[in-house]
Amino acid sequence: MVDVGAKEVTDRRARARATVRMSAETAAAVARGDAPKGDVLGTARLAGIQAAKRTAELIPLCHPLALSFVDVEASIGETEVVLIAEARTSAQTGVEMEAMTAASVAALTVYDMVKGLERGVEIAEVVLLEKSGGRHDWRR
Amino acid sequence: MVDVGAKEVTDRRARARATVRMSAETAAAVARGDAPKGDVLGTARLAGIQAAKRTAELIPLCHPLALSFVDVEASIGETEVVLIAEARTSAQTGVEMEAMTAASVAALTVYDMVKGLERGVEIAEVVLLEKSGGRHDWRR
Amino acid sequence: MVDVGAKEVTDRRARARATVRMSAETAAAVARGDAPKGDVLGTARLAGIQAAKRTAELIPLCHPLALSFVDVEASIGETEVVLIAEARTSAQTGVEMEAMTAASVAALTVYDMVKGLERGVEIAEVVLLEKSGGRHDWRR
Amino acid sequence: MVDVGAKEVTDRRARARATVRMSAETAAAVARGDAPKGDVLGTARLAGIQAAKRTAELIPLCHPLALSFVDVEASIGETEVVLIAEARTSAQTGVEMEAMTAASVAALTVYDMVKGLERGVEIAEVVLLEKSGGRHDWRR
Amino acid sequence: MVDVGAKEVTDRRARARATVRMSAETAAAVARGDAPKGDVLGTARLAGIQAAKRTAELIPLCHPLALSFVDVEASIGETEVVLIAEARTSAQTGVEMEAMTAASVAALTVYDMVKGLERGVEIAEVVLLEKSGGRHDWRR
Amino acid sequence: MVDVGAKEVTDRRARARATVRMSAETAAAVARGDAPKGDVLGTARLAGIQAAKRTAELIPLCHPLALSFVDVEASIGETEVVLIAEARTSAQTGVEMEAMTAASVAALTVYDMVKGLERGVEIAEVVLLEKSGGRHDWRR
Repeated sequence: MVDVGAKEVTDRRARARATVRMSAETAAAVARGDAPKGDVLGTARLAGIQAAKRTAELIPLCHPLALSFVDVEASIGETEVVLIAEARTSAQTGVEMEAMTAASVAALTVYDMVKGLERGVEIAEVVLLEKSGGRHDWRR
Repeated sequence: MVDVGAKEVTDRRARARATVRMSAETAAAVARGDAPKGDVLGTARLAGIQAAKRTAELIPLCHPLALSFVDVEASIGETEVVLIAEARTSAQTGVEMEAMTAASVAALTVYDMVKGLERGVEIAEVVLLEKSGGRHDWRR
Repeated sequence: MVDVGAKEVTDRRARARATVRMSAETAAAVARGDAPKGDVLGTARLAGIQAAKRTAELIPLCHPLALSFVDVEASIGETEVVLIAEARTSAQTGVEMEAMTAASVAALTVYDMVKGLERGVEIAEVVLLEKSGGRHDWRR
Repeated sequence: MVDVGAKEVTDRRARARATVRMSAETAAAVARGDAPKGDVLGTARLAGIQAAKRTAELIPLCHPLALSFVDVEASIGETEVVLIAEARTSAQTGVEMEAMTAASVAALTVYDMVKGLERGVEIAEVVLLEKSGGRHDWRR
Repeated sequence: MVDVGAKEVTDRRARARATVRMSAETAAAVARGDAPKGDVLGTARLAGIQAAKRTAELIPLCHPLALSFVDVEASIGETEVVLIAEARTSAQTGVEMEAMTAASVAALTVYDMVKGLERGVEIAEVVLLEKSGGRHDWRR
Repeated sequence: MVDVGAKEVTDRRARARATVRMSAETAAAVARGDAPKGDVLGTARLAGIQAAKRTAELIPLCHPLALSFVDVEASIGETEVVLIAEARTSAQTGVEMEAMTAASVAALTVYDMVKGLERGVEIAEVVLLEKSGGRHDWRR
């Protein structure tokens, strides 16, 4: 693990996006609330938030962080669910991995909730959108 | 959570794949073992294995399972790392989510290990490759 | 931890109930979906399900169990939220603690979601309703 | 999760109480140290302390916090065990949920330790007693 | 992780021992119940039991197991605390790591409870004593 | 748990060492990378780092801490593996237990990785080497 002890404590923020591709039928079932295991978007959102808090357990060389904020917005399109995760803290290291982990686990949860309808649903991307607060800000 | 108590215990197996896209320079650094946080493929493999064992904690409606096997193969191409995860058990429910979770967390770990070189690296897909052992076998 | 190795594997089932007392105004806000942190009943339900899966981590002398089913039903009355948790497995030991833990953590989550409206909301009871599957069935 | 990043860091403190009702015979066994699984009050105290540290994992929208203190006092009456939990930290958000979670899990542990004697033991209440350190102090 | 799916399910049992060396004064304080953080042996015992249940989370290539029994006996000598851990299950793989982990974490807990008295206390050994139930029984 | 709320926040650092004794044949297999479960030293290092981050979950009366650094150096001798763990943070309490836990779990992982070759391998010691940053520095 990199030593961040000499870095400044600054306000950190990161946003990540995951996209889950599915057929129009599956997306319509999600939109109607008809997926076999219940509310897809709400469950994915909570799973992502909870995963963000456990990022340092999942990613071996990640620093533990006390997040001041994390949320996941889940929206349904014609053939996809899009998950935008945001994490914030005031710390010596960034929250990119927290945002990426939240988006990924939210996407995995979408998959779990609809795989009974369509096994081939795919997580089509998980990307960092932007981060701010360390030496360099960055935007995709 | 779906009640699986009346299902038969059968041998279950699933494989999933995650692909992490990066520049040729970043991929070359990974291949040479020159990434800033050390051995990318080995660390990703272990992170994926450990995440598979915690799938039921991460995915709200997943059943807890005693896996008899899980592994992640990580390989480096010219502009990507490919992670193939496999999970097996003998149970009343499948191990798709364990394979998908292992591949996803391995991919997140790759991102964490190289983000100091290239912030824009993306997890380009996480997909189920095949599953067997329940009512229907399935192959992408 | 009691040695359960010589016990028979049988189908186990338990149900528990938690009641959270609050003012009519707070209950009305929950019913309308107007609580400050969002969907109270849905969040409590998921938190209870996830907690059931971690019972053996929380309760020192509890045996780890692979649950085949767990769910929490959350309903809103005029001055209370009632949470009924059910757990099932096929094992050498019962699932009372899983049902009790699910109901308790669901109730704690209700408290967390409404404490911004009314600090004095109380978890008024957490009780086992019934259990079956071991030497003796039991019903409150 | 509410964004607490703009809140002031202040000393936070909360106390919660759980009451576990049981027959005089069961309470006497607890007092004598004769419960089937061993030391009820000591085990409940440790379970509560450990649960407080995991509050943010259990309660979906809770912020992770580095507690500077947590303890649980367990006392036995004629027909009840009373558990008083206290949590303290210096943070941007309060520790009510940590105190409530500690009291609840301590109470669940009491139930687990005596359920072999009396299945119908009930957790009769879990309430916040007081909190201080945020915008408003509060006392039951 | 080794694939154990083709192995027979048999009754597995393992015992491990950890020894914690300390001065006669520190050992006397432990024996009198005068250590700064309270009951050393009882706390170490519970910590070891709980750690055994989390072995597969701690040891990367360990299989998850549903233990049917785990206990830790802690005894105090003139200049040492001895911790004997035993784990049992019925599974396709052994419980050596569960016994070793229980003994180790119990020993770490002893260290934590007395380090305020004597920083130089040492965990002098952690060894497997015996295991039975797989292809070969073994005894130190 | 001791109340550390009134202590000063200072830079804390601790180092611990674990030694794992084995036959020359087993040590040679580790050195050649021929152990049955793969890369012993790399896996032990990661397991130790991850365990350090979970110290407060394992050791009942330990305070949760946001580590700014943790690492484990693993080296192979003729008949032993030596693991040196270091932890750092800026906090109101020390990181001795984080360093001790990292060294212990790394040592347990070495045992797990070679026990198929030699069941009698022993963890021969786990000791604190030094700590600094609180009221008193200390060095073995």
